[in-house]
Amino acid sequence: MKCTILTVGTEILFGSIVNTNAVFLSQELQNIGVDVMYHMTCGDNPKRLKEMLAHAYEDCDLIITTGGLGPTQDDLTKENIAEFFGEKLVMNEVEKQRIIDWFAQTGRPCTENNYKQAVFPEHCTILPNPMGTAPGFMISKEGRILASLPGPPVEMRPMFTQYVKPVLAGMCDSRLYYKSLRFIDIGESYLETKLLPLIDGQTDPTLATYATPFECSLRIASKRATLEQAQRVVDDMVEKVRAIVGENIYSEDGSTIDQVVLKLLLSRKISLSSAESITGGQFAKTVTDMAGISEIFDRGIVTYSNRAKMEELGVSAETLDRYGAVSEQTAGEMAEGLYRVTGSDVCVSVTGIAGPDGGTEETPVGTFFVGVCYKGKVSVKKHFVNRRTRANIRDGAVQFMFRDIYKVLRDLT
Amino acid sequence: MKCTILTVGTEILFGSIVNTNAVFLSQELQNIGVDVMYHMTCGDNPKRLKEMLAHAYEDCDLIITTGGLGPTQDDLTKENIAEFFGEKLVMNEVEKQRIIDWFAQTGRPCTENNYKQAVFPEHCTILPNPMGTAPGFMISKEGRILASLPGPPVEMRPMFTQYVKPVLAGMCDSRLYYKSLRFIDIGESYLETKLLPLIDGQTDPTLATYATPFECSLRIASKRATLEQAQRVVDDMVEKVRAIVGENIYSEDGSTIDQVVLKLLLSRKISLSSAESITGGQFAKTVTDMAGISEIFDRGIVTYSNRAKMEELGVSAETLDRYGAVSEQTAGEMAEGLYRVTGSDVCVSVTGIAGPDGGTEETPVGTFFVGVCYKGKVSVKKHFVNRRTRANIRDGAVQFMFRDIYKVLRDLT
Repeated sequence: MKCTILTVGTEILFGSIVNTNAVFLSQELQNIGVDVMYHMTCGDNPKRLKEMLAHAYEDCDLIITTGGLGPTQDDLTKENIAEFFGEKLVMNEVEKQRIIDWFAQTGRPCTENNYKQAVFPEHCTILPNPMGTAPGFMISKEGRILASLPGPPVEMRPMFTQYVKPVLAGMCDSRLYYKSLRFIDIGESYLETKLLPLIDGQTDPTLATYATPFECSLRIASKRATLEQAQRVVDDMVEKVRAIVGENIYSEDGSTIDQVVLKLLLSRKISLSSAESITGGQFAKTVTDMAGISEIFDRGIVTYSNRAKMEELGVSAETLDRYGAVSEQTAGEMAEGLYRVTGSDVCVSVTGIAGPDGGTEETPVGTFFVGVCYKGKVSVKKHFVNRRTRANIRDGAVQFMFRDIYKVLRDLT
Repeated sequence: MKCTILTVGTEILFGSIVNTNAVFLSQELQNIGVDVMYHMTCGDNPKRLKEMLAHAYEDCDLIITTGGLGPTQDDLTKENIAEFFGEKLVMNEVEKQRIIDWFAQTGRPCTENNYKQAVFPEHCTILPNPMGTAPGFMISKEGRILASLPGPPVEMRPMFTQYVKPVLAGMCDSRLYYKSLRFIDIGESYLETKLLPLIDGQTDPTLATYATPFECSLRIASKRATLEQAQRVVDDMVEKVRAIVGENIYSEDGSTIDQVVLKLLLSRKISLSSAESITGGQFAKTVTDMAGISEIFDRGIVTYSNRAKMEELGVSAETLDRYGAVSEQTAGEMAEGLYRVTGSDVCVSVTGIAGPDGGTEETPVGTFFVGVCYKGKVSVKKHFVNRRTRANIRDGAVQFMFRDIYKVLRDLT
């Protein structure tokens, strides 16, 4: 099955927003064995929209559109798809009532233009939108399938996953299975070199290495007649990879280092608190992204000022004065002080320089210290992230905090 | 001047990487008055590549390609562009020597396939690549301009900015100017309805409303012979919009609510601390995204457990017991307690339910309370974010924290 992803939206052509819908759909479609041939984007313009549809219709048997289903005048996707497929648009009373109810619930006035979202091509399947007012729809005609989804990712994603993906998966004559292995303490080119005997001349399964920020990963994929066949091929290859670089693998199901660490803490009921300076709360935010983590996460303290470091964590004025806020000593006292305050099994601390200013020759921008206090025993590591933006450096610091906790937990067992 | 941006690369169709080149080029082109009509992406495939070129050639007088200029077998962009324009490929000896020198400098061996990068269409301008080995090139033929740039953003961006943009800017006969207005406490459809008299029949300036999460924005754009003319037209329209919905505008330069609030705090030297439960540090993280914010941001305390709320902020056991952790009372005591601990001018607190579990009929998932203590005076507001994911609810809570601070500051003046 060959697919064109057609994104409709002037704001994408303006460069105002990034086309994450195409990324999400490409990944999802690939997983069920659909070949994505084209990404296309055009504005809310009838002529160009129909030209794009015509091109997609020519080359592909599946067209997925996102965007242009909203209530306003410049939302034209539905109208043009209907015209392209020679379909009349008709009002759906159930959907109209749903829109009325939605506005009643949120207490906002429902203006007339909202009813536009209850009009659909005569022969289509309406795709419910539990996250917003604009439903999607699916047309199957002339050997082509077209699914039209709303633009906001928060609405588009569940609609695709729940209503479109299962239908398409049932129609594909081959299934893809893959595993993503994640690595620490090894670079992409070195990983590829070590795995070269497995990669060279290999067509199925395929092995592809990726450099993700601060670590690298390996995707092993197979496309076979059945999922079971593909799975067996991939699992055999994972075994071979493990024999070569097993000690660097920290995850075999695509879980990131934060997820691995948090699941480990949850399963062993090990409590956690954090004290952050450079990352300013990003570690605690990442921890609490996970639902149910309150079971083990007690608190996070963002001691951005020196005063806060002293008052909240008992870092000594002398240490700050003598070694500076960004030092092994300060990181150590932060973790230790956090343990005194909270008694959490794992107390992690971080202090560093995210830039762009504040770096020195000795401690350049990108330097940070991570302290891990496990049941009262503190260890501190110095890290350095080269030539990155402030955001990159903070991302790196959070990742290294999880990595340092991971290593402490790993070495326990 | 009408443009198609054609991105070549299988890894984009796989969803492995995000097409940031299209975003960058769209923004840059827009600023010099080029209309971006299409984004297209296809793989390194001769047939599909030429089909895309043909479509772009039909509709646009400018085509910019990125990707597929490298040394390996699957880099086919140059070859197909040459074929499409009926150009012979010839070896450029200067570029060949440059590649030899480059490898000599890095100490890596220069394999034969690298010379592929020194071959160019007979009639073209070569675009130097100071950041890598693959130069770009520009063809001007049959009333069309085509610029072919390398895929890696770090190489593409300076090449475009230095060698392509100035040429194009000189050829454009109009300049675009726009302003993005951001709104609170008004929905997109209601905003459009109120502005309909200004929007209807308007061709320049154009007014486009956008729904961004939890708020909406309006883009007013004009394209005129000179930047000054466009600017005057846009400013006049801003005036008219302000007359209708001025009280809902919080930003006229595209700044988001967090940026507006933080700049306000910095400029007035108003100190800030935060106490978070539901958002788990995301507010503090957002604050510290801004470089230099240590001037006013003292600390953030993530009191995820009840114990932490009592120990860190002095929330009373009775309040937690009687009203619950997610209540107006708890939010109020959190903000008040934070003020006692820190003495910061603005102490903001938040407590709520991000879900997916933990909701009750009275306090469903998506409910949160924001407390703002300004110089000791506390006010608490209840908010509710309907039917969203955990991540969305937390994003919303952070946004409402900034919004509530904004309103307190606004009402001071």
